Amino acid sequence: MNAPDFHVYDTTLRDGAQQEGLNLSVQDKLHISRLLDDLGVGFIEGGWPGSNPKDTEFFRLAAKELDLRNAALAAFGATRRPGVAAADDVLLAALRESGAPVVTLVAKSHDRHVELALRTTLAENLAMVRDSVTHLRQEGQRVFVDLEHFFDGYRANRDYALEVVRTAAEAGAEVAVLCDTNGGMLPHWVSEIVADVATTGARLGIHAHNDTGCAVANSMAAVQAGATHLQGCINGYGERTGNADLVTCVANLELKLGMRLLPPGNLADATRVAHAISEITNYPPHARQPYTGVSAFAHKAGLHASAIRVDPDLYQHTDPALVGNDMRLLVSEMAGRATIELKGKELGYDLAEDPQRLARVTDRVKAMEQQGYTFEAADASFELLLAEEMDGARPSYFDVESWRVLAESSRGDDAVSEATVKLRAGGVRLAVIGEGNGPVNALDHALRQAIEQVYPDVARFHLTDFRVRILDQGHGTDATTRVLLETSDGKNVWVTVGVGANIIEASWEALVDALTYGLRLHGVRPRIDD
Amino acid sequence: MNAPDFHVYDTTLRDGAQQEGLNLSVQDKLHISRLLDDLGVGFIEGGWPGSNPKDTEFFRLAAKELDLRNAALAAFGATRRPGVAAADDVLLAALRESGAPVVTLVAKSHDRHVELALRTTLAENLAMVRDSVTHLRQEGQRVFVDLEHFFDGYRANRDYALEVVRTAAEAGAEVAVLCDTNGGMLPHWVSEIVADVATTGARLGIHAHNDTGCAVANSMAAVQAGATHLQGCINGYGERTGNADLVTCVANLELKLGMRLLPPGNLADATRVAHAISEITNYPPHARQPYTGVSAFAHKAGLHASAIRVDPDLYQHTDPALVGNDMRLLVSEMAGRATIELKGKELGYDLAEDPQRLARVTDRVKAMEQQGYTFEAADASFELLLAEEMDGARPSYFDVESWRVLAESSRGDDAVSEATVKLRAGGVRLAVIGEGNGPVNALDHALRQAIEQVYPDVARFHLTDFRVRILDQGHGTDATTRVLLETSDGKNVWVTVGVGANIIEASWEALVDALTYGLRLHGVRPRIDD
Repeated sequence: MNAPDFHVYDTTLRDGAQQEGLNLSVQDKLHISRLLDDLGVGFIEGGWPGSNPKDTEFFRLAAKELDLRNAALAAFGATRRPGVAAADDVLLAALRESGAPVVTLVAKSHDRHVELALRTTLAENLAMVRDSVTHLRQEGQRVFVDLEHFFDGYRANRDYALEVVRTAAEAGAEVAVLCDTNGGMLPHWVSEIVADVATTGARLGIHAHNDTGCAVANSMAAVQAGATHLQGCINGYGERTGNADLVTCVANLELKLGMRLLPPGNLADATRVAHAISEITNYPPHARQPYTGVSAFAHKAGLHASAIRVDPDLYQHTDPALVGNDMRLLVSEMAGRATIELKGKELGYDLAEDPQRLARVTDRVKAMEQQGYTFEAADASFELLLAEEMDGARPSYFDVESWRVLAESSRGDDAVSEATVKLRAGGVRLAVIGEGNGPVNALDHALRQAIEQVYPDVARFHLTDFRVRILDQGHGTDATTRVLLETSDGKNVWVTVGVGANIIEASWEALVDALTYGLRLHGVRPRIDD
Repeated sequence: MNAPDFHVYDTTLRDGAQQEGLNLSVQDKLHISRLLDDLGVGFIEGGWPGSNPKDTEFFRLAAKELDLRNAALAAFGATRRPGVAAADDVLLAALRESGAPVVTLVAKSHDRHVELALRTTLAENLAMVRDSVTHLRQEGQRVFVDLEHFFDGYRANRDYALEVVRTAAEAGAEVAVLCDTNGGMLPHWVSEIVADVATTGARLGIHAHNDTGCAVANSMAAVQAGATHLQGCINGYGERTGNADLVTCVANLELKLGMRLLPPGNLADATRVAHAISEITNYPPHARQPYTGVSAFAHKAGLHASAIRVDPDLYQHTDPALVGNDMRLLVSEMAGRATIELKGKELGYDLAEDPQRLARVTDRVKAMEQQGYTFEAADASFELLLAEEMDGARPSYFDVESWRVLAESSRGDDAVSEATVKLRAGGVRLAVIGEGNGPVNALDHALRQAIEQVYPDVARFHLTDFRVRILDQGHGTDATTRVLLETSDGKNVWVTVGVGANIIEASWEALVDALTYGLRLHGVRPRIDD
């Protein structure tokens, strides 16, 4: 089924921005718009011009700066106020002046909300819908109507809810979007209600929230019952539990039901776009997110690894390349040789040719995991281990003599931390002191200050994440500690692992690996014996 | 509809543990089992005894230590190997010997998987199912069968898939669980297939993964089509995109469809249990998680605030108290008064009688949670805070002058740690040195050695768990650190919390609280001004 007239409508910049803790600048919004256009959505809801200066500014700049190939911009707003002529309504004027080709008007369709939130009559609400749509259509804009609380309204007063749909359609609204504003619907209810509303003959859309964990399924149910306009947000952003994840909905409709919604091939850009937008919102991408999550195609079970090699499609529901993602094999305690061999291949090492070396690496990984190491997340430490086995020696850029950390507090004052690191690199002996707001932070500062003198590349590395896990729990403070460090050079990100009875010792190991891996990645030559 | 015979089956400890980066110790598993039992699930799948020493140990300890009120333990395993008698199969023996009243056997039902992964014939696979079930039933265990890749198998070869269901049921399996192992199903397909399989007359279960974002909806669809056994994981943990979130499924079935699955009232414990388990797994709870997420009932207060006050039900899909969560108007952080009042009551303090004090405690908890404290798990620290508010001063047994910790390593040797603690108690000034295999361990030793001289009860306290969580992730090693300490006197167990930029400082705070709480619990009189 080809659906050239199906609307893929993104509301990340408006409803997605309602998410707790999410704040977008005008520049963020422009940047996200370009990414959404790359993905190929049909409509980008940019905000509510007139309701705040930022959104007004966005539409002003968008008209000048955005050169959209696929998407049309939509300005969001409300129907006219009660008792005011549409032409005199200030907020409707802001929508006209936004320059957006499409206006999406939110309207009430739930009788109690009309009375309680709008404080007007049911008849006046119908007039507000009729007048507002008619006015904007006359002014030359396309109009969609978002029917807020539609499903709850339908259950409370079906006749009135349908009357609002008819009124909007008759006034010239192109789509009546049925909104599950509170998010309490389940798919079978959505199917029944959408099928009933479709008898009005109006073109219908769906706007779902995830409060029952069914935002995607509710969207799919609506489309299967006849809706041809789909609203959602990238990464499922939105108020409370979020809106329907637009990428998951589109991928399901394209890959599972054979519909064609985006320009051909564009779905393969979905993972890049989803991750790039999460860089802008500064919300770390959810690893378990369908289709685009880093874990979405990651396999742990070692038992299956040999069968995966023969026929990957037996173990994945779709080809990850179709959404721009990759299958990943996790090196875990359940991992056998097949997993390690595949993982090695991913990193560019052909272990299949040398079964003895493969066995040695596998045994070493298992023994280290027994001690508490994990390589599932720590790809960089795993690659250093592989490099050591292939080249005969671990890459080494410096030779540590000693390190020491002191933390102390007097009379209840904040604790202070100080570290000393002594090492040799590039023919020089370096003894450096670092301070920090914690012992690991102090150690990190001291180590970098020393290394940087010989390897300036280190100045570009910074720690972006630090995770501590106590293993063998049930042993109190003498348990084993595992530290995972994430390091970035602004372009690449790598994770290293350290294990020890001592959290500082474990952190030290991960810090050393992090710098070593980064220098090797940058092609820096070791200067140990200069 | 009341469903006393409906199975709520949790597989967090087995399939949930397949999640990338999730590693559970035996103690973690015991701890999680108690929480699941609090919630009131019917079955807890504990792991695969015989496949690794950890899971074997779990079942051994569970039989001795777990006193479950609601749940029965299930041991997971596979049907016998091809060509081996069931009675001679080593892994089946481990299932018998696990002592678990229920065994869940995974079986193949997809013809290609039988040939490719099991490398046997379709007929032998049927015999494996028949023999394994028969054997375990004869040995007195209840048997459920997990039909791996069932939905894909049904599509590839419906007759064979149904034949496996019939074989399992005829051999005495209580439930045939239809597994969407690769997670590619959509709800309407699940409905059709489950309805068709139900014609076999077998009792059916559902096991769904979230690869299409439909794990919850697929589970609901299966139940509506006749399945009476629901598998899922707390917080939706699991391989790739995770398993169906058990709490969301159960809440939907109870609150939306009127079924009764948990003991009456237990659903109100869901938020506490979900969050406590995320402390154990060290996976930060997902804010947008349906029902239990901290944002799940959070409203950006604005236009609707007054209407929300008049009738909150117009703006929420269900009453958050039913799942132990709170509505939040986004001015405040986590805790609401109702929660604090309830928690206070749990600990024996009636705060309802003193609304001013309740408001003061609530404000203080909110401010501390803002800094990174969490009282959900740290009941002992919360009780000390309450005691302080009720009695006017924090219980205090000693007066700390200073503490200091040193950790160092030379020439790659194991690091050594040494701590100095100086304090006054019982009219004496004490200066004590402690050694340990890590800085916190050394500090713990020094502190106890000092305190014990005045308060001998301390000799009976020992740390049983130590957890570290880095907050503000994305800031590298200068992030805020939260430490949770679990202490036991052999009879009681209590948890304290400390927060700081410095992991040692945070640990110190939690250590001091741990000893203070323990002494107070033992009715020891402070001897500070002797």
